Amino acid sequence: MLRAGLIRKVGAGLYDWLPLGFKILKKVEQIIREEMDRAGGMEVWLPHVQPKELWEESGRWQFYGRELLRFKDRKDAEFCFAPTAEEIITDLARRSFKSYRDLPALMYQFGTKFRDEIRPRFGVMRAREFYMKDAYSFHATDADMDAMYQTMVDTYTRIFTRLGLKFRPVEADTGTIGGSFSHEFMVLAETGEEQIAACDSCGYAANIERAETRPPAPSAKEALKAIEEVATPNQHKVVDVAKALGVGPEKIIKTVFLIADSQPVVALVRGDTDLNEHKLQRLLGAQLIRPAKDEEYRQIANCDPGFAGPMKLKAKVVADLLVPEISNAVTGANKKDFHLKNVNIERDFKPDLIADIRNIRAGDDCPRCKGKVVFHRGIEVGHVFKLGTKYSKSMKADFLNEGGSSEPMIMGCYGIGVSRIVAAAIEQNNDEWGIQWPMPIAPFKVIVTPANMTHPESAQTAEKIYTGLKEKGLDVLLDDRDMRAGFKFKDADLIGIPLRVTIGEKSLAKGVVEIKWRNQSQAEEVPVEKAVEKITALAQAKGNETA
Amino acid sequence: MLRAGLIRKVGAGLYDWLPLGFKILKKVEQIIREEMDRAGGMEVWLPHVQPKELWEESGRWQFYGRELLRFKDRKDAEFCFAPTAEEIITDLARRSFKSYRDLPALMYQFGTKFRDEIRPRFGVMRAREFYMKDAYSFHATDADMDAMYQTMVDTYTRIFTRLGLKFRPVEADTGTIGGSFSHEFMVLAETGEEQIAACDSCGYAANIERAETRPPAPSAKEALKAIEEVATPNQHKVVDVAKALGVGPEKIIKTVFLIADSQPVVALVRGDTDLNEHKLQRLLGAQLIRPAKDEEYRQIANCDPGFAGPMKLKAKVVADLLVPEISNAVTGANKKDFHLKNVNIERDFKPDLIADIRNIRAGDDCPRCKGKVVFHRGIEVGHVFKLGTKYSKSMKADFLNEGGSSEPMIMGCYGIGVSRIVAAAIEQNNDEWGIQWPMPIAPFKVIVTPANMTHPESAQTAEKIYTGLKEKGLDVLLDDRDMRAGFKFKDADLIGIPLRVTIGEKSLAKGVVEIKWRNQSQAEEVPVEKAVEKITALAQAKGNETA
Repeated sequence: MLRAGLIRKVGAGLYDWLPLGFKILKKVEQIIREEMDRAGGMEVWLPHVQPKELWEESGRWQFYGRELLRFKDRKDAEFCFAPTAEEIITDLARRSFKSYRDLPALMYQFGTKFRDEIRPRFGVMRAREFYMKDAYSFHATDADMDAMYQTMVDTYTRIFTRLGLKFRPVEADTGTIGGSFSHEFMVLAETGEEQIAACDSCGYAANIERAETRPPAPSAKEALKAIEEVATPNQHKVVDVAKALGVGPEKIIKTVFLIADSQPVVALVRGDTDLNEHKLQRLLGAQLIRPAKDEEYRQIANCDPGFAGPMKLKAKVVADLLVPEISNAVTGANKKDFHLKNVNIERDFKPDLIADIRNIRAGDDCPRCKGKVVFHRGIEVGHVFKLGTKYSKSMKADFLNEGGSSEPMIMGCYGIGVSRIVAAAIEQNNDEWGIQWPMPIAPFKVIVTPANMTHPESAQTAEKIYTGLKEKGLDVLLDDRDMRAGFKFKDADLIGIPLRVTIGEKSLAKGVVEIKWRNQSQAEEVPVEKAVEKITALAQAKGNETA
Repeated sequence: MLRAGLIRKVGAGLYDWLPLGFKILKKVEQIIREEMDRAGGMEVWLPHVQPKELWEESGRWQFYGRELLRFKDRKDAEFCFAPTAEEIITDLARRSFKSYRDLPALMYQFGTKFRDEIRPRFGVMRAREFYMKDAYSFHATDADMDAMYQTMVDTYTRIFTRLGLKFRPVEADTGTIGGSFSHEFMVLAETGEEQIAACDSCGYAANIERAETRPPAPSAKEALKAIEEVATPNQHKVVDVAKALGVGPEKIIKTVFLIADSQPVVALVRGDTDLNEHKLQRLLGAQLIRPAKDEEYRQIANCDPGFAGPMKLKAKVVADLLVPEISNAVTGANKKDFHLKNVNIERDFKPDLIADIRNIRAGDDCPRCKGKVVFHRGIEVGHVFKLGTKYSKSMKADFLNEGGSSEPMIMGCYGIGVSRIVAAAIEQNNDEWGIQWPMPIAPFKVIVTPANMTHPESAQTAEKIYTGLKEKGLDVLLDDRDMRAGFKFKDADLIGIPLRVTIGEKSLAKGVVEIKWRNQSQAEEVPVEKAVEKITALAQAKGNETA
């Protein structure tokens, strides 16, 4: 983006959007606006600088970490630069909507958000100041909330389709915004930060933080054997122990020591799987979860780290669904340099909870159908949440229901990272030469390139085609610089214009110009007098597709 | 605006823009954008959060007072919330433009600005967070700069004309932004904060802070008389002294004691005129000017406040152009409770400077022609500046000129207060019932009001006309609430819809509906079947006029 002249870096996570980049940003914004309006959204504009008092009401002044940029005004009153607008919109709703008759309501805005990220990176992908569409809805009933949630999933699907991007809505975790249910919209790209588990057969897709695993089918158990202690000097990794004892990792019970809201917790997972801390945290309803320190490990297990088993632990023990399926398992012996063989659930240990707490893996069975799980990488560009009454309860945003009694409004919230979409579109659509814009958001759909400006007929024909395309209402660029054709082609490829029209001396002599798609190597010859018509038709036909 | 549901107050100088208000804001924005693009402007988007380092380069980190909202990020780096963007755009220009071939360039953006006003007031008129269009231009030559200045004056004239506002461009002071020359665009309104001196004959108009006075024509002098000391116990005001001594205030020389950048200055003006501190400050080239304290007065004049004359002052003395015209003047005697008669310039005192330092008055001669000065009140909504090289010199924004040597770019800057325009439009166009929107920025151009929703034919006809107007592309509102007609009319008048179509039982029986302009009392009858066509024609014809 820097090289193509779309943006310029001002400081860590701070960027100027230059004219070319801004043009793309506005195209994305306009598509989003049209679809939000179609969904019945009312556009508003809320202050970026918001008083501390509102954030104290919701509790987020305390809860939100240092990502929240806080400051004082000249009168020493405290404010923040809003990273999201739940508080201020809930305040607006509680003053505006009094009765179930005023609901449902959907409000949205475009604006700058600021999040003081520890490590701003990947350019505008994870900038501190960014451009966002955020929307909020208020409802009298759960049924209304559910209907709006579906409307917004449909609206987002329309938006990303119109933007010409390959994307996937996935079930997701709710994070610091809170709430009960959410979907992320992921733009698929190999460089994406997020991992998505999707079914190769049905429509199921989920963020890996959230993706459910299929409960194991009941299987025949082995006969239980007696526990046996074996020496495993310095071997505390699953792979080492498995090798030393000549068993597969699926025979081993792995213990993971954690502290959840200051309470010790030990998670048990099968040796060939990994613990999913997000699932565990959700299961426990914990605010904060972290690995235990060595000292804490020793207090819980009464042995050195790496040699604990599931028995005699001073902690809540949570086992994954696969753990009860292991017969005659290998575990730590709670004794340095020793492990146990033939450990069995029920007979030798009883977990406090048995639940789905592991990461899904590529190739696993789909939790919904008979398909298999495949992994994609993606960039999160949109998020829809059911917030429930988290904010309306703490901020007393009540309404009178049909029966005349007071209830908290049910809320949803819906964000799209507008500036991030531009970066994500590039991550998805590029090659070694530069960007390949999807037609709907290309800053210019067509570039007209006379190969040799000193050849008067080339220059004139280029000008004529350029003017003709402009009159058709197309976003078109004329590269009338007096430079070698190769340089011009390189620049056009770098900034990613989908369609290039080349006017060369030789082809003009034949009465034709060349049309070439950015993402194809072959050019097509078109008679000069038909060029404008043909290009317009091509550009419009590709309006909603990736060029 | 609060009552009409356009905005809602969040805190001191902080407002939500609700859907109706936002619709108006966007209409204003779009007109400005179209005219900026027509002038060759390139739209960009610059960070709101800007690093201290850039503001130190220009010197404004120190110089800008507490209006600049400053804060630290999580790494303790210092930033401000930009009140204006000279620094960041100059930084962009110095990296982007290397040669005279890259110039001129005009860049603009729409965005939120924050100024931490001591007393935010008048709603969004003087809010702390507001919405602004700011533009900046860069030039290789003065001639280029002058041409762009004129282009921008013309562009602003087009903008405010298209917005349907009565306005006036006036010569203005340059304030804290700096620079050498500027025009303010004032929306005329009786409630305006600014005073404008305009000629009743030629086009001259200036902010009172800036308005030149006409130099006095040479006149015959009286014979000089000898100085005479007279007792004036407790009389230190011009009006009291004039009365006591039986002379007109135009015979008195008023002394005003000031401190300009810590240097004492005494300004002399004729008793019937007032000092203009802005002119004096500009004349002295002072950064800061303030009234002297009593103690400072005593040090300068060696007497109590109120009794100083122009003689024997330990200060720079600056006389207004009218002072030399007073023969045998009355002045203080530099002695408590005494004044002097027959004091004469040259013979008795010699000012260090004689210049235009007084306020212009209504009825004064125009400084440009033979007309007379009249006063208007206005609201500043736009400002064009020649900045010169103030920022490019301090921030080293140089370019290579045709001769190949390095020079600082010449800059201009051009602001429009978008959110303030909405408030100013209301101040100019309202009556006791509410707002009277100019047609071009009315949130809805037409409101269709069935007088009685329980009368099926009324409801159907209203719906039909509403749909017909919508199909014509008109912004139209249907008031289908089941309420008394009088209530509906009141609401329509409050929110200021220019054109109201009333569908009543009686008029329907005659086959007509009533059309009424918001600012006229008479309604017009139109046949039902011609209503859509007629209303569309009326609304379009008034597109650029005040409705």
